[in-house]
Amino acid sequence: MSTPATVNPFLEVVQARRSAMNFVEGVKIPQSELEEIFSHTRLAPSAFNLQHARYKVIADPELKEKVRESAYGQYKIHTASAVIVVLGDMHAYEQAPEIYGGLKMLGAMSQEEYDGVIGAINQAYIGKEAFQRDEAIRNASLSAMQFMLIAKDKGWDTCPMIGFDPEAVKNVLGLPDHLVPVMLITIGKDNQRKIRPRGYRKPVGEFVDFM
Amino acid sequence: MSTPATVNPFLEVVQARRSAMNFVEGVKIPQSELEEIFSHTRLAPSAFNLQHARYKVIADPELKEKVRESAYGQYKIHTASAVIVVLGDMHAYEQAPEIYGGLKMLGAMSQEEYDGVIGAINQAYIGKEAFQRDEAIRNASLSAMQFMLIAKDKGWDTCPMIGFDPEAVKNVLGLPDHLVPVMLITIGKDNQRKIRPRGYRKPVGEFVDFM
Repeated sequence: MSTPATVNPFLEVVQARRSAMNFVEGVKIPQSELEEIFSHTRLAPSAFNLQHARYKVIADPELKEKVRESAYGQYKIHTASAVIVVLGDMHAYEQAPEIYGGLKMLGAMSQEEYDGVIGAINQAYIGKEAFQRDEAIRNASLSAMQFMLIAKDKGWDTCPMIGFDPEAVKNVLGLPDHLVPVMLITIGKDNQRKIRPRGYRKPVGEFVDFM
Repeated sequence: MSTPATVNPFLEVVQARRSAMNFVEGVKIPQSELEEIFSHTRLAPSAFNLQHARYKVIADPELKEKVRESAYGQYKIHTASAVIVVLGDMHAYEQAPEIYGGLKMLGAMSQEEYDGVIGAINQAYIGKEAFQRDEAIRNASLSAMQFMLIAKDKGWDTCPMIGFDPEAVKNVLGLPDHLVPVMLITIGKDNQRKIRPRGYRKPVGEFVDFM
C-alpha cells in the first residue's frame, strides 16, 4: 500500500472551489445555510473595519429572471439556486461611529483613540468620490472571495460574474447610487456532467516578483 | 467531560485570520514558503480567467523602508517580514491569447469557442479605461483575500493596508501606469503581546437581504 498523501483540509477547499459553469436546476438553498455562511464571511477584513460589503440574495424565481435579463440572459442564473448581488457601499464611512462606539463604551478604546480613528476615516473618505468607489469595489471583493470559499466548504458551488449591466441591476433592485454593484455570484450545486478542465493558471514566476 | 466542539479545520483558519496590528521584528519569511502560498493563491477566480493580480514581495530592508515612507511611515511595515504590493493589471486582457491558446491547442476548446471568448474579452476591455481599472481592483482583491487565508493556514499573519500614496509606491518600484496599486499586505508573525479584541462586526441581518 502506498503512503496516503498529506491531507490539508483547508487547501482541499481552496483546490476544490472552481467557478461553476452550470448548476443542477431545482435545488433550493436554505436561508439558514446562507446565514451561516455569511456569519463567517463577515470576519473578512475591510479598510478601517468599515465593512463596505452588502449582499442581496435573490432566490425568488421571478426576481431572479429579472436579474438574469440585466446579465445578458446568462443561463446559469436560471439554473442557480440563487443569484447574489454583491454591493459595495460608498457611504460605509458614515457608519464609523456605530462601528467604533461599542469598543469605546467597553473601554477597549480610549476617547482619544476613538477621535483619532474617526478623524482619519473622515479625512480619507469625505468628499473623495473616486476613492469611495475604489474602496467599495476593493472591500466588497475581499468579502466576496471569503464568501465563495466558505460556501464551498459547506458544499455549495459558486461563480463570480462580471457580465452584467450595473445600471439595469440597480433599477431592478431599486438601489441608491452609493451602492455599487461589484459582482454577481451564482450559487447552487455544480452540474458535474458539464464540468471542464480548470482554466490555465500562470506559473508563480509570471505574476510574483521577489525584491 | 463535556463533548468537544465540532472542529472544522477550514473555518478554524477563517476564524484565526485577523489583521495583525504589529509583527515580531527580525523574522525572515523564506521565499519557498511564499512561492507555495502563491501556488495556491493563483487558483482564485478572475473575470475571463485573465488573472489580473500581480504581486511585488519586498523583503529587502532598504526597499521596505522606502515603501514604508510611501505609506506614511507606518511602523508595522518596519517590523513585518515583508511588505507585499498587490497590483491589478489594467492590460490583463492583452494576455488572453496566451491564456486560452493552450486549451485550444489541447483540443479542450474549439477554434469557434476560442474566437468567441477572445472577441468577448476584447469587447469588454478595449478602450474602456474605467472598466479596466475597476477590474484591476476587483480581481486583485479577490486574489489578495485568497492569499491572506492561505498564508494564515501556513502560519503567517497578514494585514491588508490602504493607507499609502499610490503614486509614491509606483515611483519607488518604477511601475508603469497600467499597474494599479490595489493594496499593501504586510506579512510576518503577529506580536501576540499587543493583540486587541477583534473589531465589531455587523450582524448578518444588517448587511444581507434575502429576496
